[in-house]
Amino acid sequence: MRSRQRVTLESVAAHAKVSRQTVSNAINAPDVVKPETLARVLDSIAELGYQPSRAARQLRTRRSQILGYALGPVTYSVYGTIGDRFVHGLAQAAQERGYRIMLFAASNDDEEIVQFDELLSGADLDGFVLTNTHHDDPRTTWLTERDVPFVTFGRPWDAEHGTHPWVDVDGAAGTAAATRHLHELGHTRIAYLGWPHGSGVGDDRRSGWSSTMAELGLNADERWQETTDNATEHAEVAAARLLRRVGPSAVVCVSDTVGLGVMQAAESQGRRVAVTGFDDSAVSYVAGMTTLAQPIAEAARRALALVLRQIGVEPGGTAARNELLPPELIVRRTSIRPDPLSGTVGS
Amino acid sequence: MRSRQRVTLESVAAHAKVSRQTVSNAINAPDVVKPETLARVLDSIAELGYQPSRAARQLRTRRSQILGYALGPVTYSVYGTIGDRFVHGLAQAAQERGYRIMLFAASNDDEEIVQFDELLSGADLDGFVLTNTHHDDPRTTWLTERDVPFVTFGRPWDAEHGTHPWVDVDGAAGTAAATRHLHELGHTRIAYLGWPHGSGVGDDRRSGWSSTMAELGLNADERWQETTDNATEHAEVAAARLLRRVGPSAVVCVSDTVGLGVMQAAESQGRRVAVTGFDDSAVSYVAGMTTLAQPIAEAARRALALVLRQIGVEPGGTAARNELLPPELIVRRTSIRPDPLSGTVGS
Repeated sequence: MRSRQRVTLESVAAHAKVSRQTVSNAINAPDVVKPETLARVLDSIAELGYQPSRAARQLRTRRSQILGYALGPVTYSVYGTIGDRFVHGLAQAAQERGYRIMLFAASNDDEEIVQFDELLSGADLDGFVLTNTHHDDPRTTWLTERDVPFVTFGRPWDAEHGTHPWVDVDGAAGTAAATRHLHELGHTRIAYLGWPHGSGVGDDRRSGWSSTMAELGLNADERWQETTDNATEHAEVAAARLLRRVGPSAVVCVSDTVGLGVMQAAESQGRRVAVTGFDDSAVSYVAGMTTLAQPIAEAARRALALVLRQIGVEPGGTAARNELLPPELIVRRTSIRPDPLSGTVGS
Repeated sequence: MRSRQRVTLESVAAHAKVSRQTVSNAINAPDVVKPETLARVLDSIAELGYQPSRAARQLRTRRSQILGYALGPVTYSVYGTIGDRFVHGLAQAAQERGYRIMLFAASNDDEEIVQFDELLSGADLDGFVLTNTHHDDPRTTWLTERDVPFVTFGRPWDAEHGTHPWVDVDGAAGTAAATRHLHELGHTRIAYLGWPHGSGVGDDRRSGWSSTMAELGLNADERWQETTDNATEHAEVAAARLLRRVGPSAVVCVSDTVGLGVMQAAESQGRRVAVTGFDDSAVSYVAGMTTLAQPIAEAARRALALVLRQIGVEPGGTAARNELLPPELIVRRTSIRPDPLSGTVGS
């Protein structure tokens, strides 16, 4: 077992026969070092292959090339792993630009803000990448007030929080694409099962269905909608009501787990119903459910570019910019055509 | 918008009416500072609430309090998210001990080693946490040869790589518990569907079933086993063969996705078959499949303690230690009793 031989400030100093402080000055403040001494130190640095450490470089440049990213606790959740997939893309995109991602733990907004404060005091981060934006998000206000560079994956859902850079996936475009896809298959009785009103993401996804139904001249009034939380068993109950009430031939759903509830309710009632979900989760893959895939790697790459622009190391100025990316429709077995015998138009 | 007021080395120096170097000496080499000057600088530090930055502390202590962790690229996978759940636990455990996790990107062993080298040269990490250990793993050899502190989540699968600290989940104990559970329900015709021979994790999980079957005096010869890769559609084909060949009343499976293949094959053939999976994934939850949950948060906590011991900041010495944690049996709807009419013993 051989030890790693690292070239240090001390070994450069010994080689150049100067003090440690002189080597440090040669790197960080060369104008205070005598020219012949500077030349000798630089020769030693080159000869030994010395690389100033990140910490030394950071003290010099005042940039750590590190961005902070919060992870919640280990949870058991079937609700997709968009955040986990995003952080893979973020680590990759950052590395390509010489940046690293430092993780910290936070299980809610307040804990995340406490960590922002601690990390900014002690860890010299250059900025933050946030996920899971929501109405009345105190995190973006906190960072904006302190002029800390950051970007959010997820748009601001209140107008007064809308001044920072963000990247998001266009949920409305996704459900609009799903609705048009079902219409092209021959469906006209297309219902929607979504989350309760008031969530930014949920309301956005519902709007894609309702606006497309209006464009197509199809019925999308309250009777054609139900709401549920994201638990499949609750979605199944809500779907059962919706199926009995209007007898849709297809249901556009706010998520894959909600879509699974519709599939189960349809099976219980012996109905053939086309279903689309959202997120391209393992659940949708296993269930053979048509769904919408978020372009996660691309979102991460663009988020990184936006925060680097805030920091000032990416051209294009520090003005906040936004990117809204369309999801991709993934067609699977639940994209069935309507039964020709029951295919009446409207309700 | 107000700017964040940070107390710096410079502002302490100005307040104490000394040079920046003197403040630095007061923090890092107090014995070279005159006592009355030292007292004045320490008073200014206290009054202004100055916190030496992480970079400054790091130059002083030679410890960054940062651990490296590799993430692969964004992939679409239904094969569970154990690694993603582990990193949540790791971030939490590290934070509780004043450590942070720095992510880097690597899509294979060679890329991970390139990053080890780069991070050790430039980023001053204290150590690494590795996942996905496998036969002939070059990463652990590379780190061991360089005396770099690290821990693996996943045991070394070759004897010659067995000298480093690791934490793992006891796969054999898990499948043994599943086999005993099925036996307690009345099953005696218990088959096994696993991965091809040669993978450490797969062979370990198979051994728990075969040794328990032997203890119970039940048949576990080659006819009662099939192998498949982890794709549900391939598992379904292998399961169909296994069900026709020996007509088991229960199948212990190496993973949830393989278990789903058994459920689908049983349904196609109109058979009632109890099924157990492994990993407590979203797929198992949705399918109502009995499975084995890995204690991820606990594994992360113990992995952190072991790497801190290697670094020398945790009591207990730097000798490598290992922790093998049992998974927990999660009983769901696929834990059916055998059909009394076809419940013959053995084959």
